[in-house]
Amino acid sequence: MANRQLCLARRPEGALRADDFEIIETPVRTLADGEVLVRNTWLSIDPSLRIRLEARTPDGYLPPLAIGEPLAGLALGEVVESRSPDFTVGELVSHTQGYRDLAILGGDAATLGGYGAPTRIEPNGFPDRWFLGPLGSSGLTAYVGVTVILDVDAEDTVWVSAAAGAVGSLVAQLARQRGATVIGSAGSPPKVEHLLSHLGLDAAFDHRAQPLAESLAESAPAGITAYFDSVGGGHLTAALDAMRTGGRIAVCGAISGYDAGAPVPGPHNLFQLVAKSIRMEGYRAGSFNHLTPAMQEELGDHLSAGRIRFDERVFDGLTAAPEAMIAMLHGDHLGKTLVTLDERN
Amino acid sequence: MANRQLCLARRPEGALRADDFEIIETPVRTLADGEVLVRNTWLSIDPSLRIRLEARTPDGYLPPLAIGEPLAGLALGEVVESRSPDFTVGELVSHTQGYRDLAILGGDAATLGGYGAPTRIEPNGFPDRWFLGPLGSSGLTAYVGVTVILDVDAEDTVWVSAAAGAVGSLVAQLARQRGATVIGSAGSPPKVEHLLSHLGLDAAFDHRAQPLAESLAESAPAGITAYFDSVGGGHLTAALDAMRTGGRIAVCGAISGYDAGAPVPGPHNLFQLVAKSIRMEGYRAGSFNHLTPAMQEELGDHLSAGRIRFDERVFDGLTAAPEAMIAMLHGDHLGKTLVTLDERN
Repeated sequence: MANRQLCLARRPEGALRADDFEIIETPVRTLADGEVLVRNTWLSIDPSLRIRLEARTPDGYLPPLAIGEPLAGLALGEVVESRSPDFTVGELVSHTQGYRDLAILGGDAATLGGYGAPTRIEPNGFPDRWFLGPLGSSGLTAYVGVTVILDVDAEDTVWVSAAAGAVGSLVAQLARQRGATVIGSAGSPPKVEHLLSHLGLDAAFDHRAQPLAESLAESAPAGITAYFDSVGGGHLTAALDAMRTGGRIAVCGAISGYDAGAPVPGPHNLFQLVAKSIRMEGYRAGSFNHLTPAMQEELGDHLSAGRIRFDERVFDGLTAAPEAMIAMLHGDHLGKTLVTLDERN
Repeated sequence: MANRQLCLARRPEGALRADDFEIIETPVRTLADGEVLVRNTWLSIDPSLRIRLEARTPDGYLPPLAIGEPLAGLALGEVVESRSPDFTVGELVSHTQGYRDLAILGGDAATLGGYGAPTRIEPNGFPDRWFLGPLGSSGLTAYVGVTVILDVDAEDTVWVSAAAGAVGSLVAQLARQRGATVIGSAGSPPKVEHLLSHLGLDAAFDHRAQPLAESLAESAPAGITAYFDSVGGGHLTAALDAMRTGGRIAVCGAISGYDAGAPVPGPHNLFQLVAKSIRMEGYRAGSFNHLTPAMQEELGDHLSAGRIRFDERVFDGLTAAPEAMIAMLHGDHLGKTLVTLDERN
């Protein structure tokens, strides 16, 4: 049985290009004891993969991908063969070996090959793909940011960067459900319109329209008490300036630097941390997997009741994955970017 | 009755100079109801005053001092006249109107004139001046940093910047009392020797001797779990790189930028916050005044028992205050810098 894998063809120079990648076909080896073979059905296209395409990754982060190595990423799939007592054929699992038709998981691979064994998914009537999105990694990242790191309540004025994106849109809507005043920013007028009309935010602005300080002064004249940062760079600088005393900043990413080809300078105004007693905390959802059931219950209720919506853009087939990545990093679409590998989807 | 006040003569250009200041003598007005007249005996010379000498101060911070305005700073003094029911002549008080012989405090001045009414001090056998140092503002800044912001325990490896200074030396010793492994940095070989021989730190280095990354790799080969920052700039960058996953950073100041004449750029590696789930928190001791009794009990015990030492350099008389400030910002001395205004001291 042959397996198509999307591999890194060369190091990108600045913004990603489709020919930075190539599909390499390899035979699938026989399963060892404890392993399962999974046929991938959905791939999650996430900004953080971009970090691993560089020759060096930040200390403490996952290592760089080698040239010729298959890309890694969150995915869903169906168990098609099992030598594990824990999984049976036909079950749906999530795992981290996306960007390929078939993945071998479990056994030694679970400890040696990446950052997690496969996880069984029971959809309970929700679409499978949502277990990569609002009931999966995107949901957990947003839930931890809002409930643990920022601990948002009705007194808060929260600025959410990249608020039309997969995580940002959930952060913004969860914060509103907690009664906070929520200001969202995004990279185009149609996205701003979406934030106001469809996500019901209290205010929204296009971060490219004018200096961020001016937009924040208009949207939050009394300042902000919390900031959700997935952008970094000038966004973080503006947040520090607009923050009230005692404010909090959750940092889940720095997309402004991922595709830039050079390090983005740090904010010149970090002294605001002292002047205004600000707490700034970075986190990765993977450290909070124990909160997944609580997250799925809270977000599942909101989604079922229509109080929270989740937008998705689906690309078709493994060959479309480079295009999907480029579009996602470029901010071309609302919400989450996915690739389907199953013609039944 | 005439009162000498040390005033700002002009905006400093880069590093402070003695002629940036001048002594102006003014008559003392009659007390209003509720006010007390205090004869200052001890002045605390603190780096943060430097911030207020610039034409602009950071948002959220105290306003700039005007040209011709008396400097402000923590001080101790004796009540010499009282129209307040709360204070009687002869009592010792701490307050924020230093840099002058006589201060009028309380009444409307307590709310209008600054950030606090006078506080009665009962020395309980400790030297008066310690209520500006290890049992006063320096002690509270260190205590909050170690016990609240960093919450240091025996598992920690803590790097303390400016560890030979007033606050840093207390942070380092308090962290050791809690069982942590403590690494201190300072700006000269004699200071490093002091950290090792007199403060008993586990490791110490001269931050000017070689790149900070190399010194940290030698002193803490497995990385640090906590960093106490009063320096900012390159120190903060190095701490982010040397930090283990889940580390914490307490930021109480950024002295590297105070006397520089230009903003110090932010760290280029702030993404470490995400990669290593780091919490970075700024604070000001003034927000934690409710912890003063607990701090005085813990530090008082350590000082009485000789488990913690506190070094001081005393300058004599108001005319020496500019020289004291310059020496303190330049890091010329160990521990705390004070000015005495009382020939009996």
